[in-house]
Amino acid sequence: MVNPLLLPELREMLAESNSAELVEFCTALNPGRTAEFMEGLDDVDLWSVLQYADLDRRAEIFSYFDEQRQVDLLQGQEPREVATLVDRIASDDRVDLIQQLSPARVKAILPLLPVEDRRDILRLCSYEEGTAGALMTSEVAMLAESLTVAEALKELGKQASELETIYYLYVVDNDNLLRGIVSTRQLVSSLSHPDRTLGEMMETDVIVAEVDEDQESVAEKVERFNLLAIPVVDSGRQLLGIITHDDVIDVVREELTEDAHRIAAVEPLEQDYLRIGLLNLSWKRGIWLIILFFAALLTAFALEHYHEELQNYIWLVSFIPLIISAGGNSGSQSATLVITALTGGQLELTDWRTVMQREIVVSCVLGVFLSTIGYSVAIFMAPTPFAALVIPLTLLAVIIVGCFFGAALPLIFQKLGLDPAMMSNPFVAGIVDILGIVIYINIARVML
Amino acid sequence: MVNPLLLPELREMLAESNSAELVEFCTALNPGRTAEFMEGLDDVDLWSVLQYADLDRRAEIFSYFDEQRQVDLLQGQEPREVATLVDRIASDDRVDLIQQLSPARVKAILPLLPVEDRRDILRLCSYEEGTAGALMTSEVAMLAESLTVAEALKELGKQASELETIYYLYVVDNDNLLRGIVSTRQLVSSLSHPDRTLGEMMETDVIVAEVDEDQESVAEKVERFNLLAIPVVDSGRQLLGIITHDDVIDVVREELTEDAHRIAAVEPLEQDYLRIGLLNLSWKRGIWLIILFFAALLTAFALEHYHEELQNYIWLVSFIPLIISAGGNSGSQSATLVITALTGGQLELTDWRTVMQREIVVSCVLGVFLSTIGYSVAIFMAPTPFAALVIPLTLLAVIIVGCFFGAALPLIFQKLGLDPAMMSNPFVAGIVDILGIVIYINIARVML
Repeated sequence: MVNPLLLPELREMLAESNSAELVEFCTALNPGRTAEFMEGLDDVDLWSVLQYADLDRRAEIFSYFDEQRQVDLLQGQEPREVATLVDRIASDDRVDLIQQLSPARVKAILPLLPVEDRRDILRLCSYEEGTAGALMTSEVAMLAESLTVAEALKELGKQASELETIYYLYVVDNDNLLRGIVSTRQLVSSLSHPDRTLGEMMETDVIVAEVDEDQESVAEKVERFNLLAIPVVDSGRQLLGIITHDDVIDVVREELTEDAHRIAAVEPLEQDYLRIGLLNLSWKRGIWLIILFFAALLTAFALEHYHEELQNYIWLVSFIPLIISAGGNSGSQSATLVITALTGGQLELTDWRTVMQREIVVSCVLGVFLSTIGYSVAIFMAPTPFAALVIPLTLLAVIIVGCFFGAALPLIFQKLGLDPAMMSNPFVAGIVDILGIVIYINIARVML
Repeated sequence: MVNPLLLPELREMLAESNSAELVEFCTALNPGRTAEFMEGLDDVDLWSVLQYADLDRRAEIFSYFDEQRQVDLLQGQEPREVATLVDRIASDDRVDLIQQLSPARVKAILPLLPVEDRRDILRLCSYEEGTAGALMTSEVAMLAESLTVAEALKELGKQASELETIYYLYVVDNDNLLRGIVSTRQLVSSLSHPDRTLGEMMETDVIVAEVDEDQESVAEKVERFNLLAIPVVDSGRQLLGIITHDDVIDVVREELTEDAHRIAAVEPLEQDYLRIGLLNLSWKRGIWLIILFFAALLTAFALEHYHEELQNYIWLVSFIPLIISAGGNSGSQSATLVITALTGGQLELTDWRTVMQREIVVSCVLGVFLSTIGYSVAIFMAPTPFAALVIPLTLLAVIIVGCFFGAALPLIFQKLGLDPAMMSNPFVAGIVDILGIVIYINIARVML
């Protein structure tokens, strides 16, 4: 998001070193909007303007820049200034950025950071991508259960400016084992009882994420339990950090976009569409195109096998694409509906009987309808009205087969522990294409 | 989510009216987990158990039940008890539920609610589905700018138990016009300056949603500015309510699932897959199947037109499905990648030139690769190695055409203000199928 409106003014202020106005620019607006207005500047100017914001503000504005821009700035600007900024970036975002810098640059910046931050960065770097550990921030409000409401509030006031969120307080013992949580809302509601302790107020049945838990499973918990943040613990229940709601939205978006790609037979990209290397992109598409291609080759062999019939009834050839696409389209509708319902939690494997019954009814309705249209066209292209009946009968059969396999295969792959989104469509397309041809020619053989 | 583990115990406790244990069950666990353990009971037992929770807890546990279950309970249980519960449900959820009750039931329950709640419900009902107004809750912390930190905290303590979130305080004037916001975190950090006023601390550049703004645009703002909640105002900037992060996750999920359905040529369902009526489902699928069917009919006419060529070179027929599916698959890959990148904000219309250049490179790579495989098969099925060249040449052309239209059409539809997800795939499939046939036969004509 670049907004060019204020660029001339900003350049002028910089030329005049007009610090009063630059400070005003950095503080008056919402930091996200400040970022929009600045993002059109080149790296040097942008960096100069940023220096007029106080440290926390600077990190906040910085966080709204495009990720690639953030990396470029950290890569190119003066190391000491960069280190000052990095110190204030939320610990989860900071790690993501540092992992994209050149090794030489990392080596230049890390020694300029306080020991504690350095350790934190190295620790967070060690968690595998896609797990709770890689998403979490280690800045979390940890308090002892013996604290009273009044003491907790005071302690929180000291910590608040350092923390990403203060909406839950995590009650821990001396070994940092998680004992319970108190929401800030509970704390504020209890101001009239300043002597109550956190131990008396806390919820002990806390929903937690394991540090090596898959990010989709974490997102699912946050959504189901309507959490603002979820604590991350190790196998001994030691509190390591928290994952906040904004990271969860990103996970949900990532996960659903991956599903959409897989349904269209593209390996998930892991990078922005415009930024991924073209060879990499070709590979992620090519691998599935080749699998689909081999499935389609089967149809070529099948048709080769039926040459004689086709030669005798050449009008049948005209309808081959129509029949295959009717089966393929209805199958991919069914597969997509079942896959998204599985992902969205609307459907469980135990519902399989209902799904199949419903799909059979729907496919009959759709089949009868499209067959009627198909017949009314075929009647003009076939030699006799009786011969034309081959077309509607085939369409009906192919659409039923398409919906059946489209709905069944995702359920089967889910049952087998495979990703239904990834596996289904190539197989649905392959099976439906080949069955479509076989059904078509055999109906024609019987009737003609 | 039903967990049957505790059902026998719960039934026994109910039979014995063991209130001590039932109260314990309702309070000891996380309310979401309590809901899971209860959901296997029938409506009457479930309702009886719920009565052992205090009012706020009851509403919280209730909120975790499946939506249909919530409606059934409100529809069937004793009106006075229902009204007591409805009074405590968050105002946005409450309205969604009431809109699904029978008119007779609504008439029985509304008069049992406090006047204020009744007014609130009627007002929220009036906003159109899919707008900010329909998503918002009217329970929001509104405070005057003259309040000091200490006073604000005290006031917040009083309001906290009534509010869905207290993570931003909204500063309003006497007419409820929104003047600024203060985060609870700022408030807590300022405890050491208890005499500072909200007016001195507040951010005045507030990101807001208009009450009639589309929900996707609201979700986009919340994501971009990393908000926990966004205030909803009318055209005069009067504060009407807030939309919280959990509703935003739902919108993101809904929006992306709709896109996935549209890409697979299904009109968005608006209901759960298992719950939507079968005729309705057939319609939402049938409408696009028919459009795709007419597109495929064009291929039938084209092939009819080329009967003579096909009769003479019958081996060409075998490759028809292969060629069409190679074009269709690569086209739908491109379309899906472009559509998801547009939805995810990774791609703007102004990037069209880059997109097309990249697609042409990728399609050449993919085309050359698949052509090679295609040729090595065709050589065995065609009469001469030279004749077999028709297949790889066609494949290359069709894949380039597929990627080109797959990438271009979503951009064109976006430019025209139409939904790229809805419009693209039928057109991509139609255009690529028909061009595939025309290219195939014409290459064959020239070469054979």
